[in-house]
Amino acid sequence: MGGSLALALKENDLCASVVGVARRVETVRLALEMGAVDRATTEPEEALPGADVVVLAMPVRTIIEQMGRLAMLVPEGCILTDLGSTKGTILEYMDALPGHIHPIGGHPMCGKDESGLDAAEGDLYRDAPFVLSPLERTPPEVLELMQELAEGIGAHPLVVDAERHDRLVAAISHMPLSLAVALVSVVSDVAVGDDMVWELASSGFRDTTRLASSEVQMCLDILMTNRGNVREMLARLIDRLSVISNMLRDGEEMNLRALLKDANRLREDLS
Amino acid sequence: MGGSLALALKENDLCASVVGVARRVETVRLALEMGAVDRATTEPEEALPGADVVVLAMPVRTIIEQMGRLAMLVPEGCILTDLGSTKGTILEYMDALPGHIHPIGGHPMCGKDESGLDAAEGDLYRDAPFVLSPLERTPPEVLELMQELAEGIGAHPLVVDAERHDRLVAAISHMPLSLAVALVSVVSDVAVGDDMVWELASSGFRDTTRLASSEVQMCLDILMTNRGNVREMLARLIDRLSVISNMLRDGEEMNLRALLKDANRLREDLS
Repeated sequence: MGGSLALALKENDLCASVVGVARRVETVRLALEMGAVDRATTEPEEALPGADVVVLAMPVRTIIEQMGRLAMLVPEGCILTDLGSTKGTILEYMDALPGHIHPIGGHPMCGKDESGLDAAEGDLYRDAPFVLSPLERTPPEVLELMQELAEGIGAHPLVVDAERHDRLVAAISHMPLSLAVALVSVVSDVAVGDDMVWELASSGFRDTTRLASSEVQMCLDILMTNRGNVREMLARLIDRLSVISNMLRDGEEMNLRALLKDANRLREDLS
Repeated sequence: MGGSLALALKENDLCASVVGVARRVETVRLALEMGAVDRATTEPEEALPGADVVVLAMPVRTIIEQMGRLAMLVPEGCILTDLGSTKGTILEYMDALPGHIHPIGGHPMCGKDESGLDAAEGDLYRDAPFVLSPLERTPPEVLELMQELAEGIGAHPLVVDAERHDRLVAAISHMPLSLAVALVSVVSDVAVGDDMVWELASSGFRDTTRLASSEVQMCLDILMTNRGNVREMLARLIDRLSVISNMLRDGEEMNLRALLKDANRLREDLS
Protein backbone atom coordinates (compact mmCIF):
# COMPACT_ATOMS: atom_id res chain seq x y z
CA MET A 1 0.00 0.00 0.00
CA GLY A 2 2.82 2.40 0.89
CA GLY A 3 4.71 1.65 -2.32
CA SER A 4 1.60 2.16 -4.43
CA LEU A 5 0.90 5.46 -2.67
CA ALA A 6 4.48 6.67 -3.27
CA LEU A 7 4.19 5.75 -6.97
CA ALA A 8 0.80 7.48 -7.21
CA LEU A 9 2.12 10.65 -5.53
CA LYS A 10 5.13 10.72 -7.89
CA GLU A 11 3.17 9.91 -11.05
CA ASN A 12 0.68 12.65 -10.30
CA ASP A 13 3.44 15.07 -9.27
CA LEU A 14 1.68 15.92 -6.00
CA CYS A 15 4.71 16.41 -3.71
CA ALA A 16 7.91 18.42 -3.92
CA SER A 17 9.68 15.30 -2.75
CA VAL A 18 8.57 11.77 -1.82
CA VAL A 19 10.85 10.13 0.73
CA GLY A 20 10.57 6.44 1.57
CA VAL A 21 11.50 4.84 4.87
CA ALA A 22 11.81 1.06 4.93
CA ARG A 23 13.22 -1.45 7.37
CA ARG A 24 15.30 -3.32 4.80
CA VAL A 25 18.11 -1.99 2.57
CA GLU A 26 16.77 -4.06 -0.37
CA THR A 27 13.43 -2.27 -0.16
CA VAL A 28 15.20 1.10 -0.14
CA ARG A 29 17.14 0.07 -3.26
CA LEU A 30 14.06 -1.27 -5.05
CA ALA A 31 12.03 1.86 -4.26
CA LEU A 32 14.78 4.04 -5.80
CA GLU A 33 15.13 1.75 -8.84
CA MET A 34 11.37 1.77 -9.45
CA GLY A 35 11.28 5.54 -9.20
CA ALA A 36 8.67 5.22 -6.45
CA VAL A 37 10.56 7.76 -4.32
CA ASP A 38 12.93 10.71 -4.69
CA ARG A 39 14.96 9.57 -1.71
CA ALA A 40 14.83 6.55 0.55
CA THR A 41 16.46 5.42 3.76
CA THR A 42 16.27 2.81 6.50
CA GLU A 43 16.61 5.54 9.13
CA PRO A 44 13.47 7.45 10.17
CA GLU A 45 15.84 9.94 11.82
CA GLU A 46 17.07 10.97 8.37
CA ALA A 47 13.68 11.34 6.71
CA LEU A 48 11.13 12.52 9.25
CA PRO A 49 12.59 15.83 10.50
CA GLY A 50 12.06 17.39 7.04
CA ALA A 51 8.56 15.99 6.41
CA ASP A 52 5.35 17.98 5.85
CA VAL A 53 3.21 14.81 5.75
CA VAL A 54 4.14 11.45 7.25
CA VAL A 55 2.14 8.39 6.12
CA LEU A 56 2.40 5.26 8.27
CA ALA A 57 1.90 2.30 5.91
CA MET A 58 2.27 -0.73 8.16
CA PRO A 59 0.06 -3.36 9.82
CA VAL A 60 -2.26 -1.75 12.40
CA ARG A 61 -0.40 -2.83 15.52
CA THR A 62 2.99 -1.87 14.08
CA ILE A 63 1.54 1.60 13.52
CA ILE A 64 0.42 1.66 17.14
CA GLU A 65 3.81 0.46 18.40
CA GLN A 66 5.89 2.81 16.25
CA MET A 67 3.73 5.94 16.25
CA GLY A 68 5.00 7.44 19.51
CA ARG A 69 8.68 7.02 18.65
CA LEU A 70 8.26 8.30 15.08
CA ALA A 71 6.19 11.29 16.22
CA MET A 72 9.21 12.46 18.25
CA LEU A 73 11.07 12.98 14.96
CA VAL A 74 8.56 15.09 13.02
CA PRO A 75 8.68 18.88 12.89
CA GLU A 76 6.11 21.39 14.21
CA GLY A 77 2.91 21.39 12.13
CA CYS A 78 3.61 18.05 10.46
CA ILE A 79 0.59 16.02 9.32
CA LEU A 80 0.68 12.42 10.54
CA THR A 81 -1.62 9.97 8.82
CA ASP A 82 -1.79 6.23 8.16
CA LEU A 83 -3.20 3.56 5.85
CA GLY A 84 -4.29 1.15 8.61
CA SER A 85 -7.35 -1.08 8.10
CA THR A 86 -8.94 -0.32 11.47
CA LYS A 87 -9.19 3.17 12.87
CA GLY A 88 -10.44 3.03 16.49
CA THR A 89 -7.22 2.13 18.31
CA ILE A 90 -4.99 4.08 15.93
CA LEU A 91 -7.00 7.25 16.53
CA GLU A 92 -6.81 6.77 20.29
CA TYR A 93 -3.03 6.74 19.98
CA MET A 94 -3.08 9.66 17.54
CA ASP A 95 -5.10 11.67 20.01
CA ALA A 96 -2.36 11.19 22.60
CA LEU A 97 0.35 12.68 20.31
CA PRO A 98 1.97 16.03 21.24
CA GLY A 99 -0.05 19.09 20.23
CA HIS A 100 2.37 20.37 17.56
CA ILE A 101 1.54 17.36 15.34
CA HIS A 102 -1.65 17.21 13.23
CA PRO A 103 -2.91 13.61 13.12
CA ILE A 104 -5.66 12.34 10.82
CA GLY A 105 -6.64 8.72 10.19
CA GLY A 106 -6.67 7.31 6.65
CA HIS A 107 -7.84 4.09 5.01
CA PRO A 108 -7.94 3.64 1.25
CA MET A 109 -10.49 0.92 0.40
CA CYS A 110 -8.50 -1.04 -2.13
CA GLY A 111 -6.14 -3.93 -2.00
CA LYS A 112 -4.25 -6.59 -3.82
CA ASP A 113 -3.56 -10.26 -3.32
CA GLU A 114 0.17 -9.67 -3.26
CA SER A 115 1.82 -7.37 -0.77
CA GLY A 116 5.26 -5.79 -0.79
CA LEU A 117 6.88 -3.17 -2.98
CA ASP A 118 7.21 -5.57 -5.96
CA ALA A 119 3.43 -5.55 -6.25
CA ALA A 120 3.07 -1.75 -6.02
CA GLU A 121 0.93 0.00 -8.67
CA GLY A 122 0.57 3.72 -9.14
CA ASP A 123 -3.08 3.40 -10.13
CA LEU A 124 -4.12 1.16 -7.22
CA TYR A 125 -6.11 4.02 -5.67
CA ARG A 126 -7.86 5.13 -8.84
CA ASP A 127 -11.67 5.20 -8.32
CA ALA A 128 -11.30 3.69 -4.83
CA PRO A 129 -12.98 5.20 -1.76
CA PHE A 130 -10.34 6.79 0.51
CA VAL A 131 -11.60 7.08 4.09
CA LEU A 132 -10.33 10.04 6.08
CA SER A 133 -11.01 10.07 9.84
CA PRO A 134 -10.18 13.45 11.31
CA LEU A 135 -9.90 13.84 15.09
CA GLU A 136 -11.49 16.73 16.96
CA ARG A 137 -8.02 18.28 17.12
CA THR A 138 -7.42 17.96 13.37
CA PRO A 139 -7.40 21.46 11.78
CA PRO A 140 -9.87 21.83 8.85
CA GLU A 141 -7.04 22.75 6.46
CA VAL A 142 -5.33 19.43 7.24
CA LEU A 143 -8.46 17.55 6.25
CA GLU A 144 -8.69 19.66 3.07
CA LEU A 145 -5.09 18.93 2.14
CA MET A 146 -5.64 15.20 2.66
CA GLN A 147 -8.80 15.36 0.52
CA GLU A 148 -6.77 17.03 -2.23
CA LEU A 149 -4.08 14.36 -2.01
CA ALA A 150 -6.69 11.58 -2.19
CA GLU A 151 -8.33 13.22 -5.21
CA GLY A 152 -4.90 13.80 -6.73
CA ILE A 153 -4.23 10.06 -6.85
CA GLY A 154 -7.67 9.43 -8.36
CA ALA A 155 -9.44 8.23 -5.20
CA HIS A 156 -12.77 9.44 -3.73
CA PRO A 157 -12.19 10.92 -0.26
CA LEU A 158 -14.91 10.03 2.26
CA VAL A 159 -14.95 11.55 5.74
CA VAL A 160 -15.96 8.81 8.18
CA ASP A 161 -15.41 8.79 11.92
CA ALA A 162 -13.40 5.93 13.41
CA GLU A 163 -16.26 4.15 15.15
CA ARG A 164 -18.49 4.18 12.08
CA HIS A 165 -15.58 3.13 9.85
CA ASP A 166 -14.72 0.15 12.03
CA ARG A 167 -18.33 -1.03 12.18
CA LEU A 168 -18.81 -0.77 8.40
CA VAL A 169 -15.51 -2.38 7.41
CA ALA A 170 -16.25 -5.22 9.84
CA ALA A 171 -19.25 -5.93 7.59
CA ILE A 172 -17.67 -5.58 4.13
CA SER A 173 -14.09 -6.58 4.83
CA HIS A 174 -13.28 -8.22 8.17
CA MET A 175 -16.25 -10.59 8.30
CA PRO A 176 -15.61 -11.64 4.64
CA LEU A 177 -11.96 -12.24 5.60
CA SER A 178 -13.02 -14.39 8.57
CA LEU A 179 -15.40 -16.47 6.52
CA ALA A 180 -12.86 -16.97 3.74
CA VAL A 181 -10.55 -18.39 6.42
CA ALA A 182 -13.35 -20.53 7.89
CA LEU A 183 -14.27 -21.82 4.44
CA VAL A 184 -10.72 -22.88 3.59
CA SER A 185 -10.48 -24.50 7.01
CA VAL A 186 -13.67 -26.57 6.52
CA VAL A 187 -12.62 -27.68 3.04
CA SER A 188 -9.19 -28.68 4.34
CA ASP A 189 -10.98 -30.94 6.85
CA VAL A 190 -13.06 -32.43 4.03
CA ALA A 191 -9.81 -32.96 2.13
CA VAL A 192 -8.44 -35.12 4.97
CA GLY A 193 -11.15 -37.65 4.06
CA ASP A 194 -11.07 -37.09 0.28
CA ASP A 195 -8.39 -34.90 -1.24
CA MET A 196 -10.09 -34.85 -4.63
CA VAL A 197 -12.01 -31.88 -3.20
CA TRP A 198 -9.08 -29.58 -4.09
CA GLU A 199 -9.09 -30.85 -7.69
CA LEU A 200 -12.73 -29.86 -8.08
CA ALA A 201 -12.28 -26.34 -6.69
CA SER A 202 -12.77 -23.88 -9.55
CA SER A 203 -12.99 -20.11 -9.97
CA GLY A 204 -16.03 -19.81 -7.66
CA PHE A 205 -14.13 -21.27 -4.73
CA ARG A 206 -11.03 -19.24 -5.53
CA ASP A 207 -13.06 -16.01 -5.63
CA THR A 208 -14.88 -16.73 -2.37
CA THR A 209 -11.65 -17.55 -0.52
CA ARG A 210 -9.34 -14.94 -2.09
CA LEU A 211 -9.20 -12.85 1.12
CA ALA A 212 -7.74 -15.86 2.97
CA SER A 213 -4.52 -15.35 1.01
CA SER A 214 -4.02 -11.85 2.44
CA GLU A 215 -0.90 -11.29 4.51
CA VAL A 216 -1.27 -13.06 7.88
CA GLN A 217 0.13 -10.37 10.20
CA MET A 218 -2.01 -7.69 8.56
CA CYS A 219 -5.14 -9.84 8.99
CA LEU A 220 -4.35 -10.71 12.58
CA ASP A 221 -3.87 -7.03 13.45
CA ILE A 222 -7.14 -6.15 11.75
CA LEU A 223 -9.15 -8.81 13.56
CA MET A 224 -7.52 -8.20 16.96
CA THR A 225 -8.14 -4.44 16.80
CA ASN A 226 -11.77 -4.74 15.67
CA ARG A 227 -12.89 -7.68 17.78
CA GLY A 228 -16.24 -6.37 18.97
CA ASN A 229 -17.51 -5.37 15.54
CA VAL A 230 -16.21 -8.51 13.86
CA ARG A 231 -17.85 -10.70 16.49
CA GLU A 232 -21.16 -8.91 16.07
CA MET A 233 -21.04 -9.38 12.29
CA LEU A 234 -20.05 -13.04 12.66
CA ALA A 235 -23.04 -13.59 14.94
CA ARG A 236 -25.32 -12.08 12.29
CA LEU A 237 -23.71 -14.19 9.58
CA ILE A 238 -24.08 -17.38 11.62
CA ASP A 239 -27.72 -16.51 12.13
CA ARG A 240 -28.28 -16.03 8.40
CA LEU A 241 -26.49 -19.30 7.55
CA SER A 242 -28.75 -21.09 10.07
CA VAL A 243 -31.78 -19.55 8.38
CA ILE A 244 -30.61 -20.90 5.01
CA SER A 245 -29.93 -24.32 6.52
CA ASN A 246 -33.40 -24.39 8.08
CA MET A 247 -35.02 -23.36 4.80
CA LEU A 248 -33.28 -26.33 3.17
CA ARG A 249 -34.33 -28.68 6.00
CA ASP A 250 -37.95 -27.57 5.75
CA GLY A 251 -38.03 -27.30 1.95
CA GLU A 252 -39.07 -23.63 2.15
CA GLU A 253 -38.38 -23.01 -1.49
CA MET A 254 -40.28 -19.74 -1.85
CA ASN A 255 -38.34 -18.13 1.00
CA LEU A 256 -35.05 -19.44 -0.32
CA ARG A 257 -35.84 -18.09 -3.79
CA ALA A 258 -36.62 -14.67 -2.31
CA LEU A 259 -33.32 -14.65 -0.42
CA LEU A 260 -31.34 -15.68 -3.52
CA LYS A 261 -33.13 -13.10 -5.66
CA ASP A 262 -32.47 -10.27 -3.21
CA ALA A 263 -28.80 -11.21 -2.90
CA ASN A 264 -28.50 -11.49 -6.69
CA ARG A 265 -30.01 -8.04 -7.25
CA LEU A 266 -27.90 -6.37 -4.55
CA ARG A 267 -24.74 -8.05 -5.80
CA GLU A 268 -25.46 -7.00 -9.40
CA ASP A 269 -25.89 -3.39 -8.26
CA LEU A 270 -22.36 -3.53 -6.87
CA SER A 271 -20.51 -4.70 -9.95
CA MET B 1 -22.64 -23.75 -20.44
CA GLY B 2 -24.37 -25.39 -23.38
CA GLY B 3 -23.38 -22.58 -25.75
CA SER B 4 -19.76 -22.73 -24.61
CA LEU B 5 -19.74 -26.50 -25.09
CA ALA B 6 -21.16 -26.18 -28.61
CA LEU B 7 -18.50 -23.58 -29.49
CA ALA B 8 -15.77 -25.78 -28.00
CA LEU B 9 -16.96 -28.86 -29.92
CA LYS B 10 -17.06 -26.85 -33.18
CA GLU B 11 -13.73 -25.08 -32.66
CA ASN B 12 -11.99 -28.38 -31.94
CA ASP B 13 -13.82 -30.13 -34.79
CA LEU B 14 -14.93 -32.99 -32.56
CA CYS B 15 -18.35 -33.77 -34.09
CA ALA B 16 -19.62 -34.40 -37.61
CA SER B 17 -22.42 -32.00 -36.77
CA VAL B 18 -23.38 -29.94 -33.70
CA VAL B 19 -27.12 -29.34 -33.44
CA GLY B 20 -28.57 -26.88 -30.94
CA VAL B 21 -32.03 -27.06 -29.39
CA ALA B 22 -33.27 -23.95 -27.62
CA ARG B 23 -36.63 -22.81 -26.32
CA ARG B 24 -36.52 -19.41 -27.96
CA VAL B 25 -36.23 -18.53 -31.65
CA GLU B 26 -33.81 -15.69 -30.83
CA THR B 27 -31.42 -18.16 -29.21
CA VAL B 28 -31.60 -20.41 -32.28
CA ARG B 29 -30.77 -17.40 -34.49
CA LEU B 30 -27.91 -16.23 -32.29
CA ALA B 31 -26.40 -19.74 -32.09
CA LEU B 32 -26.36 -19.92 -35.90
CA GLU B 33 -24.96 -16.38 -36.26
CA MET B 34 -22.19 -17.12 -33.76
CA GLY B 35 -21.29 -20.32 -35.55
CA ALA B 36 -21.81 -22.22 -32.30
CA VAL B 37 -23.84 -24.88 -34.12
CA ASP B 38 -24.23 -26.40 -37.58
CA ARG B 39 -27.99 -26.50 -37.21
CA ALA B 40 -30.41 -25.26 -34.57
CA THR B 41 -34.10 -25.60 -33.83
CA THR B 42 -36.70 -24.98 -31.15
CA GLU B 43 -38.11 -28.48 -31.75
CA PRO B 44 -36.44 -31.41 -29.96
CA GLU B 45 -38.45 -33.64 -32.32
CA GLU B 46 -36.37 -32.34 -35.24
CA ALA B 47 -32.97 -32.68 -33.62
CA LEU B 48 -32.93 -35.66 -31.29
CA PRO B 49 -33.87 -38.59 -33.57
CA GLY B 50 -30.57 -38.17 -35.45
CA ALA B 51 -28.31 -37.67 -32.41
CA ASP B 52 -25.39 -39.86 -31.32
CA VAL B 53 -24.85 -37.84 -28.14
CA VAL B 54 -27.45 -35.64 -26.41
CA VAL B 55 -26.20 -33.14 -23.82
CA LEU B 56 -28.80 -31.66 -21.45
CA ALA B 57 -27.55 -28.17 -20.54
CA MET B 58 -30.26 -26.82 -18.25
CA PRO B 59 -30.83 -26.17 -14.54
CA VAL B 60 -30.87 -29.43 -12.58
CA ARG B 61 -34.62 -29.70 -12.06
CA THR B 62 -35.39 -28.78 -15.68
CA ILE B 63 -33.13 -31.69 -16.66
CA ILE B 64 -35.11 -33.95 -14.34
CA GLU B 65 -38.46 -32.71 -15.68
CA GLN B 66 -37.51 -32.93 -19.35
CA MET B 67 -35.35 -36.03 -19.41
CA GLY B 68 -38.13 -38.62 -19.75
CA ARG B 69 -39.86 -36.81 -22.60
CA LEU B 70 -36.63 -36.09 -24.48
CA ALA B 71 -35.40 -39.67 -24.05
CA MET B 72 -38.43 -40.87 -26.04
CA LEU B 73 -37.00 -39.05 -29.07
CA VAL B 74 -33.46 -40.42 -29.14
CA PRO B 75 -32.40 -43.37 -31.27
CA GLU B 76 -31.10 -46.77 -30.14
CA GLY B 77 -27.60 -46.56 -28.65
CA CYS B 78 -27.70 -42.81 -28.12
CA ILE B 79 -25.56 -41.40 -25.32
CA LEU B 80 -27.48 -39.11 -22.98
CA THR B 81 -25.46 -36.85 -20.72
CA ASP B 82 -25.87 -33.54 -18.91
CA LEU B 83 -24.01 -30.56 -17.44
CA GLY B 84 -26.02 -30.36 -14.20
CA SER B 85 -24.36 -29.12 -11.01
CA THR B 86 -25.66 -31.93 -8.78
CA LYS B 87 -25.61 -35.56 -9.83
CA GLY B 88 -27.55 -37.67 -7.30
CA THR B 89 -31.11 -37.02 -8.44
CA ILE B 90 -30.21 -36.75 -12.12
CA LEU B 91 -28.55 -40.16 -12.03
CA GLU B 92 -31.60 -41.70 -10.33
CA TYR B 93 -33.70 -40.47 -13.24
CA MET B 94 -31.08 -41.55 -15.76
CA ASP B 95 -31.11 -45.04 -14.29
CA ALA B 96 -34.85 -45.28 -14.98
CA LEU B 97 -34.43 -44.54 -18.72
CA PRO B 98 -35.21 -47.26 -21.29
CA GLY B 99 -32.38 -49.78 -21.84
CA HIS B 100 -31.54 -48.75 -25.42
CA ILE B 101 -30.21 -45.37 -24.16
CA HIS B 102 -26.74 -45.01 -22.62
CA PRO B 103 -26.85 -42.39 -19.87
CA ILE B 104 -23.80 -40.91 -18.15
CA GLY B 105 -23.69 -37.92 -15.77
CA GLY B 106 -21.43 -34.96 -16.52
CA HIS B 107 -20.38 -31.82 -14.66
CA PRO B 108 -17.67 -29.51 -15.96
CA MET B 109 -16.20 -27.57 -13.02
CA CYS B 110 -16.09 -24.12 -14.52
CA GLY B 111 -18.42 -21.21 -14.71
CA LYS B 112 -18.95 -17.59 -15.47
CA ASP B 113 -20.75 -14.70 -13.83
CA GLU B 114 -22.95 -14.20 -16.86
CA SER B 115 -25.17 -16.90 -18.26
CA GLY B 116 -26.87 -17.24 -21.61
CA LEU B 117 -25.53 -17.74 -25.11
CA ASP B 118 -24.18 -14.16 -25.34
CA ALA B 119 -21.63 -15.06 -22.69
CA ALA B 120 -20.55 -18.34 -24.32
CA GLU B 121 -16.80 -18.94 -24.77
CA GLY B 122 -15.21 -21.80 -26.69
CA ASP B 123 -12.31 -22.03 -24.24
CA LEU B 124 -14.43 -22.03 -21.06
CA TYR B 125 -13.60 -25.70 -20.44
CA ARG B 126 -9.84 -25.41 -21.06
CA ASP B 127 -7.87 -26.80 -18.08
CA ALA B 128 -11.09 -27.29 -16.07
CA PRO B 129 -11.91 -30.58 -14.33
CA PHE B 130 -14.79 -32.33 -16.14
CA VAL B 131 -16.57 -34.77 -13.83
CA LEU B 132 -18.03 -37.85 -15.47
CA SER B 133 -20.37 -40.02 -13.40
CA PRO B 134 -21.07 -43.30 -15.16
CA LEU B 135 -23.92 -45.52 -13.97
CA GLU B 136 -23.56 -49.27 -13.53
CA ARG B 137 -25.39 -49.65 -16.83
CA THR B 138 -23.08 -47.26 -18.70
CA PRO B 139 -20.98 -49.26 -21.23
CA PRO B 140 -17.18 -48.71 -20.84
CA GLU B 141 -16.91 -47.44 -24.41
CA VAL B 142 -19.44 -44.68 -23.62
CA LEU B 143 -17.27 -43.52 -20.72
CA GLU B 144 -14.23 -43.63 -23.01
CA LEU B 145 -15.95 -41.55 -25.68
CA MET B 146 -17.00 -38.96 -23.11
CA GLN B 147 -13.43 -38.83 -21.77
CA GLU B 148 -12.19 -38.19 -25.32
CA LEU B 149 -14.74 -35.41 -25.82
CA ALA B 150 -13.76 -33.79 -22.50
CA GLU B 151 -10.07 -33.97 -23.43
CA GLY B 152 -10.89 -32.71 -26.92
CA ILE B 153 -12.23 -29.44 -25.49
CA GLY B 154 -9.16 -29.07 -23.26
CA ALA B 155 -10.73 -30.26 -19.98
CA HIS B 156 -9.44 -32.89 -17.54
CA PRO B 157 -11.95 -35.74 -17.27
CA LEU B 158 -12.37 -37.10 -13.71
CA VAL B 159 -14.51 -40.15 -13.00
CA VAL B 160 -16.43 -39.50 -9.78
CA ASP B 161 -19.55 -41.29 -8.57
CA ALA B 162 -22.66 -39.19 -7.94
CA GLU B 163 -22.66 -39.46 -4.15
CA ARG B 164 -19.00 -38.46 -3.84
CA HIS B 165 -19.44 -35.66 -6.38
CA ASP B 166 -22.39 -34.16 -4.53
CA ARG B 167 -20.57 -34.28 -1.18
CA LEU B 168 -17.42 -32.65 -2.56
CA VAL B 169 -19.16 -29.92 -4.58
CA ALA B 170 -21.26 -29.09 -1.52
CA ALA B 171 -17.94 -28.16 0.11
CA ILE B 172 -16.27 -26.21 -2.70
CA SER B 173 -19.27 -24.79 -4.52
CA HIS B 174 -22.68 -24.98 -2.84
CA MET B 175 -21.57 -23.93 0.64
CA PRO B 176 -19.56 -21.00 -0.84
CA LEU B 177 -22.68 -20.02 -2.81
CA SER B 178 -24.79 -20.14 0.37
CA LEU B 179 -22.37 -18.02 2.34
CA ALA B 180 -22.03 -15.48 -0.47
CA VAL B 181 -25.81 -15.11 -0.28
CA ALA B 182 -25.75 -14.91 3.53
CA LEU B 183 -22.98 -12.31 3.42
CA VAL B 184 -24.83 -10.05 0.99
CA SER B 185 -27.95 -10.47 3.11
CA VAL B 186 -26.19 -9.40 6.33
CA VAL B 187 -24.57 -6.39 4.66
CA SER B 188 -27.91 -5.35 3.20
CA ASP B 189 -29.27 -5.33 6.77
CA VAL B 190 -26.31 -3.21 7.89
CA ALA B 191 -27.07 -0.88 4.96
CA VAL B 192 -30.57 -0.27 6.29
CA GLY B 193 -28.94 1.51 9.22
CA ASP B 194 -26.06 3.06 7.25
CA ASP B 195 -25.97 2.80 3.48
CA MET B 196 -22.40 4.08 3.26
CA VAL B 197 -21.47 0.42 3.74
CA TRP B 198 -22.00 -0.19 0.00
CA GLU B 199 -19.69 2.70 -0.87
CA LEU B 200 -16.89 1.14 1.14
CA ALA B 201 -17.23 -2.31 -0.43
CA SER B 202 -14.15 -2.94 -2.57
CA SER B 203 -12.66 -5.82 -4.56
CA GLY B 204 -12.42 -8.08 -1.49
CA PHE B 205 -16.16 -7.93 -0.89
CA ARG B 206 -16.93 -8.30 -4.58
CA ASP B 207 -14.72 -11.41 -4.81
CA THR B 208 -16.19 -13.03 -1.69
CA THR B 209 -19.77 -12.46 -2.87
CA ARG B 210 -19.33 -13.13 -6.60
CA LEU B 211 -21.24 -16.44 -6.43
CA ALA B 212 -24.31 -14.59 -5.15
CA SER B 213 -24.72 -13.11 -8.63
CA SER B 214 -25.14 -16.55 -10.23
CA GLU B 215 -28.45 -17.23 -11.95
CA VAL B 216 -31.17 -17.66 -9.30
CA GLN B 217 -33.02 -20.66 -10.76
CA MET B 218 -29.77 -22.55 -11.28
CA CYS B 219 -28.74 -21.89 -7.65
CA LEU B 220 -32.12 -22.86 -6.26
CA ASP B 221 -32.07 -26.15 -8.17
CA ILE B 222 -28.55 -26.86 -6.93
CA LEU B 223 -29.37 -26.20 -3.29
CA MET B 224 -32.73 -28.03 -3.37
CA THR B 225 -31.21 -31.16 -4.95
CA ASN B 226 -28.21 -31.30 -2.59
CA ARG B 227 -29.86 -30.34 0.68
CA GLY B 228 -28.33 -32.93 2.98
CA ASN B 229 -24.75 -32.30 1.93
CA VAL B 230 -25.16 -28.51 1.89
CA ARG B 231 -26.66 -28.56 5.38
CA GLU B 232 -23.82 -30.71 6.70
CA MET B 233 -21.24 -28.32 5.25
CA LEU B 234 -23.11 -25.27 6.58
CA ALA B 235 -23.08 -26.84 10.05
CA ARG B 236 -19.33 -27.29 9.81
CA LEU B 237 -18.87 -23.72 8.58
CA ILE B 238 -21.02 -22.31 11.40
CA ASP B 239 -18.92 -24.28 13.85
CA ARG B 240 -15.70 -22.85 12.42
CA LEU B 241 -17.04 -19.30 12.45
CA SER B 242 -18.00 -19.77 16.11
CA VAL B 243 -14.46 -20.96 16.83
CA ILE B 244 -13.06 -17.78 15.24
CA SER B 245 -15.52 -15.62 17.16
CA ASN B 246 -14.54 -17.33 20.43
CA MET B 247 -10.85 -16.86 19.68
CA LEU B 248 -11.53 -13.14 19.26
CA ARG B 249 -13.59 -13.02 22.46
CA ASP B 250 -10.88 -14.78 24.45
CA GLY B 251 -7.96 -13.02 22.77
CA GLU B 252 -6.47 -16.37 21.69
CA GLU B 253 -4.05 -14.77 19.32
CA MET B 254 -1.72 -17.75 18.84
CA ASN B 255 -4.58 -20.02 17.80
CA LEU B 256 -5.99 -17.38 15.49
CA ARG B 257 -2.59 -16.84 13.90
CA ALA B 258 -2.24 -20.61 13.32
CA LEU B 259 -5.69 -20.72 11.66
CA LEU B 260 -4.91 -17.72 9.43
CA LYS B 261 -1.51 -19.18 8.50
CA ASP B 262 -2.96 -22.58 7.57
CA ALA B 263 -5.70 -20.98 5.48
CA ASN B 264 -3.19 -18.69 3.79
CA ARG B 265 -0.91 -21.60 2.87
CA LEU B 266 -3.75 -23.80 1.59
CA ARG B 267 -5.24 -20.92 -0.40
CA GLU B 268 -1.87 -20.09 -1.95
CA ASP B 269 -1.44 -23.72 -3.04
CA LEU B 270 -4.69 -23.37 -4.99
CA SER B 271 -3.85 -20.32 -7.06
